[in-house]
This record gives sequence, structure tokens and C-alpha cells, in this order.
Amino acid sequence: MQEKLNRLKEILGVVADLNGAAALLDWDQQTYMPPGGVNNRGYQMATLESMAHSKFVSDEVGTLLEELKPYGESLDPESDDACLIEVTQREYQKSVKVPNAYVAEWSRVTTLAHGAWEEARKNDDFAHFQPHLEKIVELRRQYADFFKPYDHVYDPLLDDFEPGMTTAEVQEIFTSMRPKQVELIKAIAEQPQVDDSFLHLHYEEEGQWEFGETAITKYGYDWNHGRQDKAAHPFTTNFGLGDVRITTRVDENFLNTALFGTLHEAGHAIYEQGVAGELDRTPLGKGASLAIHESQSRMYENLLGRSYDFWVHFYPQLQERFKTQLGNVDLDAFYQGINKVEPSLIRVEADEATYNLHIMLRLELEIALMEGKLAVSDLPSAWNDRMKDYLGVIPPNDTEGVLQDVHWSAGILGYFPTYALGNLVSNQLWEKINQDIPGLSAQIQAGNFTELLAWLWENVHRHGAKFKPQHLVKKVVGTSISPEPYLKYLNEKFGAIYGL
Amino acid sequence: MQEKLNRLKEILGVVADLNGAAALLDWDQQTYMPPGGVNNRGYQMATLESMAHSKFVSDEVGTLLEELKPYGESLDPESDDACLIEVTQREYQKSVKVPNAYVAEWSRVTTLAHGAWEEARKNDDFAHFQPHLEKIVELRRQYADFFKPYDHVYDPLLDDFEPGMTTAEVQEIFTSMRPKQVELIKAIAEQPQVDDSFLHLHYEEEGQWEFGETAITKYGYDWNHGRQDKAAHPFTTNFGLGDVRITTRVDENFLNTALFGTLHEAGHAIYEQGVAGELDRTPLGKGASLAIHESQSRMYENLLGRSYDFWVHFYPQLQERFKTQLGNVDLDAFYQGINKVEPSLIRVEADEATYNLHIMLRLELEIALMEGKLAVSDLPSAWNDRMKDYLGVIPPNDTEGVLQDVHWSAGILGYFPTYALGNLVSNQLWEKINQDIPGLSAQIQAGNFTELLAWLWENVHRHGAKFKPQHLVKKVVGTSISPEPYLKYLNEKFGAIYGL
Repeated sequence: MQEKLNRLKEILGVVADLNGAAALLDWDQQTYMPPGGVNNRGYQMATLESMAHSKFVSDEVGTLLEELKPYGESLDPESDDACLIEVTQREYQKSVKVPNAYVAEWSRVTTLAHGAWEEARKNDDFAHFQPHLEKIVELRRQYADFFKPYDHVYDPLLDDFEPGMTTAEVQEIFTSMRPKQVELIKAIAEQPQVDDSFLHLHYEEEGQWEFGETAITKYGYDWNHGRQDKAAHPFTTNFGLGDVRITTRVDENFLNTALFGTLHEAGHAIYEQGVAGELDRTPLGKGASLAIHESQSRMYENLLGRSYDFWVHFYPQLQERFKTQLGNVDLDAFYQGINKVEPSLIRVEADEATYNLHIMLRLELEIALMEGKLAVSDLPSAWNDRMKDYLGVIPPNDTEGVLQDVHWSAGILGYFPTYALGNLVSNQLWEKINQDIPGLSAQIQAGNFTELLAWLWENVHRHGAKFKPQHLVKKVVGTSISPEPYLKYLNEKFGAIYGL
Repeated sequence: MQEKLNRLKEILGVVADLNGAAALLDWDQQTYMPPGGVNNRGYQMATLESMAHSKFVSDEVGTLLEELKPYGESLDPESDDACLIEVTQREYQKSVKVPNAYVAEWSRVTTLAHGAWEEARKNDDFAHFQPHLEKIVELRRQYADFFKPYDHVYDPLLDDFEPGMTTAEVQEIFTSMRPKQVELIKAIAEQPQVDDSFLHLHYEEEGQWEFGETAITKYGYDWNHGRQDKAAHPFTTNFGLGDVRITTRVDENFLNTALFGTLHEAGHAIYEQGVAGELDRTPLGKGASLAIHESQSRMYENLLGRSYDFWVHFYPQLQERFKTQLGNVDLDAFYQGINKVEPSLIRVEADEATYNLHIMLRLELEIALMEGKLAVSDLPSAWNDRMKDYLGVIPPNDTEGVLQDVHWSAGILGYFPTYALGNLVSNQLWEKINQDIPGLSAQIQAGNFTELLAWLWENVHRHGAKFKPQHLVKKVVGTSISPEPYLKYLNEKFGAIYGL
């Protein structure tokens, strides 16, 4: 059996190598690739992804998994090998249903779509992107059909990012949260608004970049196993657990963009840098799910980065660096400013209280596209209508509206809801962390994140993708994913800031 | 037949995709990869190279080539398809002799060796690199043995870079050149030395970088299909003909390093950017051979970049940018300074008159290593002995001696002689160019390289690897590779500078 397991790991290693190479091609495309590279990059991505796919869905892997199944069940269910066999079996079952030709076409189409989206975004020209997105929606429907029967055409997409969750479950959570979030936003809107004008002054890029690096170094981001570069849409990627890179976008006229973007991506990256090395080059060498991943990024961005404690330590440094802009803004005013609640256009810059409404909008549009109830050509107006209904703001152009997110250009549908689920999980974990580390607040005020990182490493990071997200959450906090800690946190935090 | 040819092209396209991805992995390793990435990068390179190899040496390719052979011979021998079938056949015959397991091990060993070389170079610690180089030499001997019978163990290595040339041929050319180069250097040494002290002042990096970019933009380097980054050892690479990148090293205390390095790499890159797009993703989508490649880089570095005409146009700009350093240096003095002949330690910074001696030294050491007459452990002292004999200088440490070049760390043996051959070809072409473009000197003085580039494109670049190097040279200048134009050029140029 050990021999069969080793053979399985050998094949999985080759699949991981191909995926790692594809990830580097993608990183390069989003950071440094000149425009002339786009056609060949499309071919290369298609070749690598198609090869990784056919290696993985080979009969040999199927046979090995079949033979190893009883062996896996005989092991400690939390052991690396038991989890590896189980998770690989699950991913294999999904993958064999997708034909190789589909994978190759998918890769080619999405690579071209990404370039078209960048063009469209630059020129505020949705029509330039529209045929690409139409093709993507068509291909996503074909994809869902590989997994028939399903309860909902959106289920197979969601399952790719949040194993085991259904459209109905997510809709239920969202439906229960929405009135409470709307109620909170309404209450806030009746209070005097806080001032955040100082965030919109000119902050030169170099200082922003360096402050971000200083902060995430304190968080524990390991520069020997990563680096930071610029990209139009920030993301985290890895080419193996020893090289986990982040990207950031800098806006010299808005401090939040790079600041919270960097803290956010560092949360993703620190998670992956912490996955146990033994899981590298296997399907376990990654985060448990996107919601778990997002729980880490949102924790580092919001529960830390938008907390009072964090700025007790970091504000003097930031103030020193940007004397002209912040010299007359005291800590309380700064804290209030970065936590200003105001319905706005851009998801990644939304405050914590309105953020989930951006997600709900996208989820509903994605579901409507998949159900065929919404044509891609009607997407910009549907977007703007909902922005008006939910947030009371209308994008002045598509670049700040329907074209703002990279996801659809990469063919990613089913992903957005995991952002909201991540918010919930981050607060479930946060409650437990504060029980386990009573001195955490004081540690953060001293710029000391060591004990926090050790806790996250012990309870979350090192496990990689060994456990299903619901299993992991239950294992750590005792209950499954639920919205209460998040709503409680929002009410307490913004109740204090806005004097509710 | 058209169907078979299309199928062949399809497979060759996939091989090109894998090679292109591997090239990006290598580019990234030499430019941006954090140290922690090295292990997985080794696995990834090995996987890609092994897959490209097995795709290429598949029975299907063999059968297709067999079937297409008569068809290819029935076509115009200079047509793309005829050349494709012939060149692919030649490369296939070589590749099938190399087992897949060897290719995978080779890739892994050289990736680790590169990291070890960087360490060794940083710490001036040859012993750290030694076991890696021993392994490489051992593997190169195994490689040569795949091609038995051969006249000389070094022949199969040389043939990889300069198809059809033998060790004996190269040694004959070198033997005929050596006394004439030595004679010239001796004559120069008896003359008063020119002053180049102004090249060793402090030149800030940004200005150097920008001047290099300005110059190669004038040359015709296309930034939409390429970019420039920093690397310890400058190189040119491509991931398809639409994305040809160069790298440069900057020394703030020596103007030549980045300046001539950039001009040199631009020559390589402009060549590849000019290969006809129809040849992309095939074995013809690259330079004809390394000597032809080097003929282009040396032309842009030396025949242009170290010419008086070039600096008539560019010197006022450079002087303006570096007023403090060059304000009192006139054009004649600058021209003499950058053409100073002086035996020195570093090959890439050697002047034109001594350069070939650096090559001869390396060729002899490589041959001795391959013949087993020299142990790797004795390499540093053998290096230093020959430096003393040929150039009269002894490296103060191995970093400036035996560790200076990247080639051996990448397992590249058999490559160095092509640098010297490239010098010869560049001058053969240059004579013909000046016959065909009588006004060239005036054009260069005006910073106009358009007609030159058009000539190179028409006669050399667009053909890619369609023709063997000797065939191409004969086609363009009427004779095979010969040293006379190069020696004539050296004598005339340095005769004028040193008043011989």
C-alpha cells in the first residue's frame, strides 16, 4: 500500500508542478507581461492546464484511489495520508466529469477574456468585454451540466470554492443577515457622519508601499518565501508553499487602497506560508476553502487592520511618515475615518457594514446569468439598478461599476459569496481567539502578533486543506458557519463609533 | 499530407508551450523569485522539461516525420514547411537518443546548481559549487555517450549550439587566430595607454538605466513585445516571439557594465523579435544558431555601440545626463576610453581585442574537464594559471575568476566558443552591410538605425532557424564562417586608436 501511495503522491506532485507553473504564468501576466505576450500566454496556459487535468484524471489515478480507499479508512482520519486519500478522491470524482477539451477551451477563453477586460476597463467599454463574458457564461452552464443532477445550476460552481455548500444554504444565510445589516446601515445614516477627508489627500506611493511592508512584516509575512508586486487587481498566489506572493494596487489619492489591500493579501499569504511543508505538492497544500481563506484575509485586514488596538501601535509611524496629511489628525479621528460607513461604488474599498451588500448584488446577478434570466448585454443596467436599490449609489461609468472586479474576466463565478462567508468565519474564530488569548488586545497595541499567529498556525494554517471548511470551523469553535458573531461585532463596533 | 503536417505542428506547438513556460520559470528564478522558491522551482522545471521532451520524442512525431520526409523534399527547399520538416527531423534524431529520465535529472541538477553557484559567488566559496559542477560534468559525459561514435567527446555538446561544427574545426579557427590576436595585443601594449578613468566614476543607476532604454529604443527594440529587468547575469529569453525579454546588471561604479550589457542583449532580442510570426511555436521560431545569435548581439554592442559613429549621435545625450562625470571628456577621449585595450578579469567586460582569449581559456578547460584530464577541484587553479599565461592577470578571488559566468551552473558546456564565432560572423555581415548601404555611417551618426534593421530583418532575422548557420552565412555573404574580416577590423580600429 505504501508503494501505491508513493506512486499516487508522485503523480500528484507532477500535477502540482504543472499547476504551479500555470500560476506563475498567470502572476506574470498580471504583473509584468508586455501586451505582445498575450496570445502565446493563452496557448501556454491552455497546454499546462490541459496536461495537469489529464494527468490527474488518468485511469492510473482512479485505480490507485480505488485500491487505497480501504487503506485510507483504516488510518487515523486526521492523519495526513487519510486526508490526502479522501480529498484526492473527492477532487478526482469532480474532475473526471470534465472533458479535457473543455478544460483547454476554458483556459484559452478566459486568458483572452482577461486581456479584453483590461482593455474594456481602461476605455470604459463594456461592449468590448461582453462577447467574452457571454462565452464564459455559456461555458459555465456547460460545466454545471457535467454535474447533473443538481438542485440548482449554480450549485456545482459554488461547490468548487466551498466544498459541500449549496446555493439554497448560502441564500438562507444571506436572507437572514440582510435585514439586520440594512437596519444597522439605516441607523448609522441617521447619525452625524464621521470625517475621512484626510484619507483622500495625496499620499506618495513610496511611503504607502513601505508602510504596508512594515506592517505585514510585523504580522509575520515571510519575505524569504514571498514578495510583493503591483497589479491592477490585487491577488495572492503561490508556486509551492515556499513561494507565496502578494500583489497590491496603489492609489496616491486614497490611502485605503494599498493599505487595506496589502493587509488583506498578507492574510491570505500568511495562511499559505503556514501550511505544513509535508503537504506541499499535494491537493492538501493549500487553504481549506475560500471562506476559510477569506476568514484569514479579513481578519488581518479588518479585525486587526481596522481595529483601535492595531493603530495604537502603528498610527504614530504612519503619522510620522505622512506629517503633512495626518499631523493634525489624532488617533481617535483616524480610527473613525478608516471605519466610516458610507454606501459606495467599489467592493474592495467598501466598509465592513456595507460590504456584504456588494456581495449579495453579485450573487444575485451571477445566479440570474446562470439561470438564463439575465442576458450579459443587460448586465450593466442590472448592476446599476441594484446598486441604486441596495446602496443608493449609481456608478458614473462601467469601469467603476460592472467592470470593477477581475473575477468574471477569469471566468470565476460562484466565488463571490465566499467573501461574505469569510467575514462570518473570521468573527467566529476571533471570538475563540480572544477567549484563548486574554492578553491579545495589549499584545496588538504593542505591535506583537506572535501569539496570534501561533494560534492561527496551530488551529488553522498548518492543516492546509485536510479538513472540509465546516469540519474545520466546528473543530475549532464548536459550531458550524453562522452569522451571529459577525452581526454582534458590527453592532458593537459601529454602535460605539456612531453612538447608537 | 497537409493533415499530417498540421498534426505535427499541433504537437510542436504544445512542445513550444511547455518550453515557453519553462523559460518563464527560469526568467523568474533569475529576476524575482524569493529564495524559498528554489526547491519547487527545481521540480517544476524538471516536470516541464521532461514533458516537453517526451512529447517531442513520441512515436507519433517519429512516424509523422517519416511520412512527411518525401513531401518535404518535394517542396521548395527554402519554404517554411520544407525547413520545418528538415529541422524537426534533425532535432528529433538528436532527442530520441536522450532518455527521459536523464532529462528530468538534468533539469533538477542544474536548477540546484544555479542556486549553489549564486551562493558560491556571493561568498567567494568555490567549494560550495564544486559538487554540483562535478555532477554536471559527469552528466555531460553521459550525454556525449548517447551520441557515440564521435570524433571527440566535446563534439556532441558543441553540436547542440552550433549544428554541424566539430571540436577540430573550432580548434583550427582558434589556432589560426590566436597568434594574430596576441601580436596585436603586444603591439598595443607598447603604445601609450589611453585614459578610461572617467568610466569608473560614480554613475547613478537610474540615469544608466534610462540611457540604455533610450539607446535600444532607437535600435528598434519593441517594448510592446518585451521588457527589461535586473539579473545577476544578463540574458535574453522569450516565451514566444511576442514576448522577448532582456535583463541587465548595473554597476554604479563602472559605466560599461549596464551600457554595453544592454546593447548586447538588445541585439539578441531584436533578432528574436524579428523572426517571422509564422514560425512561432515551431522549432524554427528562434535564432539560426548561437554564433548567428551572437553575431547580432556583438554587432549591436560593438560594431555599433563601440563605434565612433554611434557616439556622434549619443554622446551629447550621455554627457548631458552625466555632466559631472563626462563634462570635461570630449567625444574622441570618450571613444578611446570605451575602446581601451587591457587584459582584464571579466569576460563580459573585456575589450574586443582581448575577448577571444577569454573564450579560448574556457574552451580548453571545458575540453579538459570532458576528457577527464582536469578534475573539477583543480579548476580554480587551472583557471588562474591560464589567466596568468594568456592575459597576464590573476583573479584575486574565485568570484572574479572561475565563478564569474553563469553558464556552467546551468550545465552549459560547448557554448563558449560560439561567442568567438559570433564575433567573426558579425564582421562578415558588417562588410556586406556596408557594401549594400553606402550611407550607413551617416545614418548611424544621425541615430537612424532603420535601414540597418531592415537589412538584418530581410537577410537574417525573419528566417529564424530555417537555415543552418554555415548555409545562412554563405547565402548572405557568399563564404562560410571565416576570421579574416574580424582580424582586419581589429587591426584597423585599434591601429587607428593606438597609432600603430
